[in-house]
Amino acid sequence: MFESFFRRQTIPGQTKIAMMILDGLGGLPKEPGGKTELETAYIPHLDALAGKSALGLSVPLGPGVTVGSGPGHLALFGYDPLECEIGRGPLEALGVDFDLHPEDVAARGNFCTLDENGIIIDRRAGRLPTQESRKLVEILREIKVDGVEIFLETVKEHRFALILRGEGLGSNVSETDPLLAGKSPIKLIAHDVSSQKTADIVNQLVEKAQRVLASEKLANMILLRGFAKLPSVPSFMEMYQLNATCIAVNGMYRGVSRLAGMHIQEVNGYSLADEFSTLEKVWQDFDFFYLHFKKTDTCGENGDFEGKVEAIEEFDRQIPRLMALNPDVVIVTGDHSSPAVLKFHSWHPVPLMIYSKYCRSDAIPEFGERACARGSLGQVFARHIMPIALANAGRVAKYGA
Amino acid sequence: MFESFFRRQTIPGQTKIAMMILDGLGGLPKEPGGKTELETAYIPHLDALAGKSALGLSVPLGPGVTVGSGPGHLALFGYDPLECEIGRGPLEALGVDFDLHPEDVAARGNFCTLDENGIIIDRRAGRLPTQESRKLVEILREIKVDGVEIFLETVKEHRFALILRGEGLGSNVSETDPLLAGKSPIKLIAHDVSSQKTADIVNQLVEKAQRVLASEKLANMILLRGFAKLPSVPSFMEMYQLNATCIAVNGMYRGVSRLAGMHIQEVNGYSLADEFSTLEKVWQDFDFFYLHFKKTDTCGENGDFEGKVEAIEEFDRQIPRLMALNPDVVIVTGDHSSPAVLKFHSWHPVPLMIYSKYCRSDAIPEFGERACARGSLGQVFARHIMPIALANAGRVAKYGA
Repeated sequence: MFESFFRRQTIPGQTKIAMMILDGLGGLPKEPGGKTELETAYIPHLDALAGKSALGLSVPLGPGVTVGSGPGHLALFGYDPLECEIGRGPLEALGVDFDLHPEDVAARGNFCTLDENGIIIDRRAGRLPTQESRKLVEILREIKVDGVEIFLETVKEHRFALILRGEGLGSNVSETDPLLAGKSPIKLIAHDVSSQKTADIVNQLVEKAQRVLASEKLANMILLRGFAKLPSVPSFMEMYQLNATCIAVNGMYRGVSRLAGMHIQEVNGYSLADEFSTLEKVWQDFDFFYLHFKKTDTCGENGDFEGKVEAIEEFDRQIPRLMALNPDVVIVTGDHSSPAVLKFHSWHPVPLMIYSKYCRSDAIPEFGERACARGSLGQVFARHIMPIALANAGRVAKYGA
Repeated sequence: MFESFFRRQTIPGQTKIAMMILDGLGGLPKEPGGKTELETAYIPHLDALAGKSALGLSVPLGPGVTVGSGPGHLALFGYDPLECEIGRGPLEALGVDFDLHPEDVAARGNFCTLDENGIIIDRRAGRLPTQESRKLVEILREIKVDGVEIFLETVKEHRFALILRGEGLGSNVSETDPLLAGKSPIKLIAHDVSSQKTADIVNQLVEKAQRVLASEKLANMILLRGFAKLPSVPSFMEMYQLNATCIAVNGMYRGVSRLAGMHIQEVNGYSLADEFSTLEKVWQDFDFFYLHFKKTDTCGENGDFEGKVEAIEEFDRQIPRLMALNPDVVIVTGDHSSPAVLKFHSWHPVPLMIYSKYCRSDAIPEFGERACARGSLGQVFARHIMPIALANAGRVAKYGA
């Protein structure tokens, strides 16, 4: 409702918006009463920017909800993650950081065990070890089917992701997995005409897979389900009249950005400094810059409190390079929290600052969980950050006389 | 939308959640600029717990809305009080603290005055005094009708509540009250087959009531309307996978808890200490504990500022008994505000603390209206407290990759 209204209000402009996402930024103290990772970090540049910014806490989806990076980013880009739910196949592909394109069809795959009569005796092939799985995926990668590019990615144990890329591939198909042992794998059926090509291709692929896996004892067949494309959403140009670009090293974030119609940059290198070099290089060419930093989340998930502190400090050292570009609006936040003490994503709202010349700053020169809790933005849904940023960029028309 | 989504995300766990409800907790200062009841009270244990908690203000239903305890509790339990509206009959029964069961049919009753031709000349029987009404209700209680248990409770002046309990009682019936003087009471009609038994029983009951009241001058008949059952809502087990119990002395709270599928404890005594003894006794048997304290609201409604302060202090003294049980999550709040200076429920948001090891505490060691206004939870809808508590209890799955 608000989203479709807001879309009508956006107007073009010359201003530039930089959205800096520290993945899994929000944290928790090691001991109750102590400081979080962000509160521990020495971040003079972020603190100074906070002092000139409006502060708040971003709620990725809703109270008490822990999100993955997919829905977390959809929300940051202004989409409602419940309305554009990501199907199981694309979820599996994004989960292993595959750079999914909007027209790709993705599925969840299992290795399974068939008996000599072609009956499934173990749907999970004894949960074969990931390293074994990886070898079998290499074998499957040799398979070619006309008219399509096939990608296969090991996930974990018996699980893998299958991605089909090509012209005219619908995703409205059945599943090959009968979901029960004692049955045979099922031929894929297309539920509409535009998915017939997909069904044909997958059936050929499965046949070939069975052939190349025939000599395997445990994992002599594959099962496929959850076929889907990424949800279809309006682009940044359509929604916001923004020419947007993505600066991210990891596939998942590139995939979600491509979904939003962003131009995906090739970063020359893998470090954060390399990402900022890309930012500098393309600064003249776009209105909106999404820059993603993965290390904060990786450390959080590994339970590495000090590593996360250092990652945040590493980010802080790049801030002068951003500010030298003289951006009109700067957003610094995360897609969710990943406290090192939990070693996992969490539901906690995420520190947020929105800087612009006209942001009505809170004059709180500290970027941290509790400092942001005192900020004037309060708790704000992640999907409302873009509207506030666009307003600060002078890109929203007045409503009514 | 969010509620049905959230329900899909809950997962089972071993953790325990204690929800402590001080009825009508929120208050106002006696003089502008002074301290509220809660801010006045000496509550060292609640203050200490606040220091380790996330603080905020709970909005029972929406901005500016004053709620009764019924919708106030529905919201605390995670239901939308607008979606599960309580009918007039059940409202009357809950309002006099009747322990309504989910299958009970309740109605609002009036004593009225008929002339010798059976025509209503006063629908309210001269608003006869409550004590007179109470005597007549005693007389009506002698009436027996086959196949049903009948409960009658005096409300105020000419008003009483009628409750029918038994098998196969639908509530889709008409009313006996023509709503106008100059007409006769109307026989009850069933609007569906499953409500025929109810109509028959009520018609018999009304006939017998007319007989036993025949000698009364003012109140020689009864009128009945607003027949309804409590709304049907999913249970705590269905919504949250929580095995929940209710520790409350007063009927209304037991009724709303029974609606939520909670196991209702028999408290051995009426004091708050007795309620905490029950809590200790059943601690091993449940995952979720709702404990209700009435005195704060009673004092607020009586305009007894000091009494409310003392009631809050009484509650504070029990907190060590709760914490000795080592709960994973503790919620302390109220169902609404009842400032003594207003002698009435009010719309003001209610102080709220949510404690857990992972709550990201605000380090504000004070439980009070203004302290909570500075908390990181901000203003939170009462119906979103359960989602946050469940997240803190590790009982919510991640959404998306």
